[in-house]
Amino acid sequence: MIIDIHGHYTTAPKALEAWRSRQIAGIKDPSAKPAVSSLKISDDDIRVTIEQNQLKQMRERGLDLVLFSPRASFMAHHIGDFAVSSTWAAICNELCFRVSELFPEHFLPIAMLPQSPGVAPETCVPELVRCVEEYGCVALNLNPDPSGGHWTSPPLTDPHWYPIYERMVEYDIPAMIHVSTSCNACFHTTGAHYINADTTAFMQLIQGDLFTRFPTLRFVIPHGGGAAPYHWGRYRGLAQELKKPLLTEHLLHNVFFDTCVYHQPGIDLLTRVVPLENILFASEMIGAVRGIDPETGHNYDDTKRYVEAAALSPEDRRQIYETNARRVYPRVDTALKKKGN
Amino acid sequence: MIIDIHGHYTTAPKALEAWRSRQIAGIKDPSAKPAVSSLKISDDDIRVTIEQNQLKQMRERGLDLVLFSPRASFMAHHIGDFAVSSTWAAICNELCFRVSELFPEHFLPIAMLPQSPGVAPETCVPELVRCVEEYGCVALNLNPDPSGGHWTSPPLTDPHWYPIYERMVEYDIPAMIHVSTSCNACFHTTGAHYINADTTAFMQLIQGDLFTRFPTLRFVIPHGGGAAPYHWGRYRGLAQELKKPLLTEHLLHNVFFDTCVYHQPGIDLLTRVVPLENILFASEMIGAVRGIDPETGHNYDDTKRYVEAAALSPEDRRQIYETNARRVYPRVDTALKKKGN
Repeated sequence: MIIDIHGHYTTAPKALEAWRSRQIAGIKDPSAKPAVSSLKISDDDIRVTIEQNQLKQMRERGLDLVLFSPRASFMAHHIGDFAVSSTWAAICNELCFRVSELFPEHFLPIAMLPQSPGVAPETCVPELVRCVEEYGCVALNLNPDPSGGHWTSPPLTDPHWYPIYERMVEYDIPAMIHVSTSCNACFHTTGAHYINADTTAFMQLIQGDLFTRFPTLRFVIPHGGGAAPYHWGRYRGLAQELKKPLLTEHLLHNVFFDTCVYHQPGIDLLTRVVPLENILFASEMIGAVRGIDPETGHNYDDTKRYVEAAALSPEDRRQIYETNARRVYPRVDTALKKKGN
Repeated sequence: MIIDIHGHYTTAPKALEAWRSRQIAGIKDPSAKPAVSSLKISDDDIRVTIEQNQLKQMRERGLDLVLFSPRASFMAHHIGDFAVSSTWAAICNELCFRVSELFPEHFLPIAMLPQSPGVAPETCVPELVRCVEEYGCVALNLNPDPSGGHWTSPPLTDPHWYPIYERMVEYDIPAMIHVSTSCNACFHTTGAHYINADTTAFMQLIQGDLFTRFPTLRFVIPHGGGAAPYHWGRYRGLAQELKKPLLTEHLLHNVFFDTCVYHQPGIDLLTRVVPLENILFASEMIGAVRGIDPETGHNYDDTKRYVEAAALSPEDRRQIYETNARRVYPRVDTALKKKGN
């Protein structure tokens, strides 16, 4: 079985984007504010966007299950206030839940949170509870920078974030650390802000001692861990200068990296440097990089090809494809077992 | 000959730091503002800090020449106004010049600029001219974020920066893109801000067309190019989506990476992914990561060991150690030839 732990609903029906545009217009002009009930998306609308896109590619590539969350760049927590984020998150989470209901063999939902810059993260708890208890979400996406590239929130090790962590521990669900659109002209969203956030989060975790306080808390750092594996020596050395334990002890019981690295040498480095139990298969397909690599003739984001070509045993691959995901996301394991897998 | 293109005067006499502290105190209390003439550093003071540190390590490691600039984290352009930065840059640049005069076989100076957040970069031109014409500086360090982690300046492709680029072209000198201390709690200086800045700069250059306007402009992206080589597929794919030429055409006549990557797998990836003519030997020794790697028993920043162990021919290594540096920094080549090298 191959589980892709990093998928977003990037292909949602156009009605969703149109509704969001009206919601944004309504921030300045309350008379333009749309009712939630004015958004009409039928099951058939959803089916077609999934069947012709994600499911088609999953079949072509041989992927069985995708952990599926709202489109990351559209979370845009910097837009409007908490009420705006709250309504938007509820809509997006419900859509991913409906995908998981329509395609129960192939998708399990992951929640986005209604974060808003300067608003306490505990305000996100009710949506998180709803997503886990009513929608069966197996994880959440946590945005370390709801300002969208201005980095005005405290580091992830700050008590600011503890109300989220307490629920994660209670539910035994991991969080993927994932920013959204950059509204800082210096940072291209998927080329700089995403990768920088991954690197930043990893270094914040090195500096702190978060997992002493929350020993079962688990984070997934996407996009192959940003720059961390490439600069593993730097990070080992910095941890050493900060008098922290070895990274294996300090972080690697709690921190995992996905395989969203879009070329063979990158996956080779990742699997050489990071212990295999910390690597989770993912492609973020139909995401940031949708083209075909002229050097290979295949999609850049067809990461299974790189994992297949890496110097790994079948058992190593099984860990990356399935076993690690079942361990890091226990609710995935439970859901699969319920279906006899 | 082995040229290390990335060294900073991290070991400058303590009097320098003490003077800077008084300068900073003087921002709030003008009566505390120190005279430049109150900073006394003798040639012997300089000699001892170099001989016992950089030069000692250069001899141990077999490095011949270091391109030497003021301590990056101490540039701290976010402190005070342009006048503060101007005085500080002048002092630091003069010190590196003196190092190059005292050890002419082993050091050539690189200038820092008196950047200040919100101040037009053309204000830096007089210091740049002085450094090149009077001190023989062979390059400059350009800080893309003088705010220190708030990223309030325009991207490097913006005309904002052109006055610096025009002088670089005129003098035929490259710039290393190098930030300074982070004053944003989210970003650890050397573990997040440095690496993020490298990644950010690379993506800004992909988005723009700067080298169409300045075909001979050259940038060195330090710390192995941040995350760029590890995510080379992502960057090739993003350039493709932005309808840019292949990276080899779009950037690689003008953009170079150093070897400040502190473990073997990182250097192996760098030399596998990036064309050898774009790789410049560097260690940033006695810099961010000064410890000994327990996995090897050698300094993390002894990057020559990794280059020696990489799958490279002697001719490949000569390119990385010397030939590329002479080409990218023509004033280094001229200085060496004057001395019969």
